[in-house]
Order: sequence, then structure tokens, then C-alpha cells
Amino acid sequence: MTSDQAASVTAAVLVIGDEILSGRTKDKNIGYIADYMTNIGIDLREVRIVPDVMAEIVDALNALRHRYTYVFTTGGIGPTHDDITADAVAQAFGVELYEDQRIIEAMLTRIKPEDLNASRRRMARVPQGGDLVPNPVNKIPGFRIGNVIVMAGVPMIMQAMLDGVAPTLETGVKLTMTAIEADAPEGAYAAALGDIAKAHEGLSIGSYPSYADGKFKNQIIVRGRDPQEVAAGVTEIETMLDQLRAARA
Amino acid sequence: MTSDQAASVTAAVLVIGDEILSGRTKDKNIGYIADYMTNIGIDLREVRIVPDVMAEIVDALNALRHRYTYVFTTGGIGPTHDDITADAVAQAFGVELYEDQRIIEAMLTRIKPEDLNASRRRMARVPQGGDLVPNPVNKIPGFRIGNVIVMAGVPMIMQAMLDGVAPTLETGVKLTMTAIEADAPEGAYAAALGDIAKAHEGLSIGSYPSYADGKFKNQIIVRGRDPQEVAAGVTEIETMLDQLRAARA
Repeated sequence: MTSDQAASVTAAVLVIGDEILSGRTKDKNIGYIADYMTNIGIDLREVRIVPDVMAEIVDALNALRHRYTYVFTTGGIGPTHDDITADAVAQAFGVELYEDQRIIEAMLTRIKPEDLNASRRRMARVPQGGDLVPNPVNKIPGFRIGNVIVMAGVPMIMQAMLDGVAPTLETGVKLTMTAIEADAPEGAYAAALGDIAKAHEGLSIGSYPSYADGKFKNQIIVRGRDPQEVAAGVTEIETMLDQLRAARA
Repeated sequence: MTSDQAASVTAAVLVIGDEILSGRTKDKNIGYIADYMTNIGIDLREVRIVPDVMAEIVDALNALRHRYTYVFTTGGIGPTHDDITADAVAQAFGVELYEDQRIIEAMLTRIKPEDLNASRRRMARVPQGGDLVPNPVNKIPGFRIGNVIVMAGVPMIMQAMLDGVAPTLETGVKLTMTAIEADAPEGAYAAALGDIAKAHEGLSIGSYPSYADGKFKNQIIVRGRDPQEVAAGVTEIETMLDQLRAARA
């Protein structure tokens, strides 16, 4: 944990959809948004995946929106009966939904007036006080109300919406991140690494095992807002690993 | 939502790790566990991803373990300072950690006694009252306490642990699932589909747009515990789509 966390800009992601929880659809948005937030200097601090159930969505929204600078939702904004995200957001904020004429007009550029049925009109509903989030892909916008940004679940559309809303977001100091290939078992360096982490409260230092090409490898990741402190931490860790290698040689 | 949900066996997944939230590591466990639960007749109802912060892990554990039949955690069980899952689980359950001699012995089959340092011993700590979850990959077990199953974050190890614990889990009636290619815009069938969903409380009916090969397509998924009701719902939906095609032809 970084000591300047209180001052940082934070975010949570709320993924809405039975299809993700059943395994039928594999989420591709969480990792994308995580990278995106890191790149623009926002700390993604929590993710939740909930089913298409009103009370679950409302409870998660209220838990997250009071806690983080921004909440990004994905999914549940289409025209079918299981698309209840707009209703849930309105309920969480205690406001009504209105039909946004700009969305109706955008839809009419793509469908005939006689095809503008009640189901499609559902997609034009925005909570009172909301702003539209542009969608260059299929023109039907997402929306934003307060610190909650409501986006589509289809990754291509979600990504376009994120590009649209990103310039309007407050961002923090970008993290500097350095990866060190540890080439030693975690158990051999854990104590020394813990001491270095303890001495640098401004750094977040993690050790991550992974498995590829038939063997385990360990990476040490050093993250922080002060590039000089990151560099100092990296030097200490590399020296520690060198000493370890020398001792084992 | 299915009407027999109260009687079903449910689960939540708690992913623990800064590296997932920073985007540096892309989670591969959620989708795998989702498929696995569906296949063995357990309803995955919620997923949370939290950072390597004690209070966050404890709060999420306590929120989830009182609510679902099982909670599966992934990540944070290695030997380094950021591996605090065992501590968090013990704190959530209000018990102490003990050093499990079976784990010490398993580690000693792979490392020399002089390499069994304090960091590695951390991996032998299990909350009082816990059982071991076997790990055929690198021998260091996960554990289970009450309804919480604590697994590694490395997918290959997590998968082996899931195989180890699955036979001990209570499971529900497997869902029957049928996918229908809708070949029509969602907005055209949304109202009729909503009516069918309303008439079948025992079914979960969802409509899912996706984008591939340069075009959008929509799938309607019908899920339920009673295969006959699923079949009946599918027939009604196919008839509805046929009528729609005829009307548009």
C-alpha cells in the first residue's frame, strides 16, 4: 500500500450479468479497464460481478459509489427484460428515469420510425441528472450520473465509451512500475523483500509466481508515485537478489 | 431468476491481489471457476476482486461467507509479505493460525531442511479448525475452514486444488442450458421475450449481444433446473422468432 493512497483517484468496476457468472461469457472488460486506469493514473481498487438482479445491482452500486472516486459498470443496458442497469442506477440514486430525445434521434438514424418500439425506447432511458457517454460504434450512448459511469458489456462498445468518458475524469499521478525477474524461489527472498517493503511505505512491492513453458518463475513488481523512490527500491531489491545469488553460488 | 433459487447451492469467488487490479496480471480463474461451478450444479452468484489489504479481504470474506454456501478465494498464499490471505481468513473467523506439520513435511520433500526459513513456514500456517486442500502440483496445500476454500492464484495450481475439493462439496441440481441464435435485432424481440420470461418463473432467460467477424449477433440463453420447462421455454422462443421472421419477410 502506498502512503499517499488517501490522496489518489480511485475506481471500482461493477460487472453486471448472469452470463459472466455462469461462465458462458468470459469477461474481457475487467483486465482492459484495469490497464486503462493504471495508464491514466487512476487506482482500480475493487471489482464486483453481480447477477441481473435489481437488489444485487443497487446494493453493489451503493456500496461502491460512496467509497471510490468513480464506479464503472458494464452490461445490462440493452433492450431486453434482463437489461435493468438503468433502473438499478436510478433506484440507487433515488431518481426517476426520463427518455432522452438525443438517444431517440440517434436510434432513428439507424432504424425506421415504425421499428422504434417500447423495448428499443428502454435504451433511451437515462436517470434524471445524468449525462450521455458517447458511443461511436452503434450510436446508443451510455450515461454518467454523479460518479457512476454506465457502459455496455460488449467489449468493443465498452472500449469506445471508455475513450469517450476518459478525458472528463479527474486523474492522479501515474504510478511508476518496474518488474524484476527474480530467478530465485520466493521462499529464499521473502524475508529480505519484506524488510525492503517495510522500509518503503510509499511503494507497493509484490512478488508474483507464474507458470509458463513448463516452469515456475517469480516476478517482483515495484510500484509507486515517486519515480525516485521506485528506482531506489528496485536497486535495493536487485542488490538483495545479487547477494542471494552469490550466497548460493 | 429461478424460483427454486433459495434451495440451490450457491458460491462466491474472492480474488485477492493487487496485480489483478493493476492490470498487470489478467485473471484466468474467474471464468474457469464459473464454468466448473455450472458443471457441478453450484450457482456462482457473486465475484469480488480486492487488493492485498487485510481489512479489505476480511470485510469481503465476512460479507460473502455468511451469504453463500461456499466462498472460493484465489491468491495470496505464498511466502512473501504481500501474501496475507491465511491471516485474513483467520481474522475473519476469529481464530488463530497454527503451523501444520503435514505441510512442513510436504515442503521438506522438495527443499532442504536448512532452506525451511520463516518465510516458507508461513505457507504452513492454517487457521485453527481448517482442513487441507491437496495440491498435487507443488505439494503445498490450500485449506478449507467452514465454507471458505482457500486456493492458490496460479491457475494450474488453483485448478488442481478445485479438483481436490470438488468431491467434498454439496452440489445442487445441474442447470439445463440451451442457446438459441436469434438472427434478429434484440429490439425486435425484446417485448415478446420479456413476456415469455415472465410466464416462466423457473427459467432464467437472457439475451446476449456479441460482436465477431465484423458483425453483431444475438444469442438467447435459456437456463433452468427442470429440463422440461427449459424445453418448453425454448419452443416458445423459437416459435416467437419464427413469427418475427415471417412478419419481416
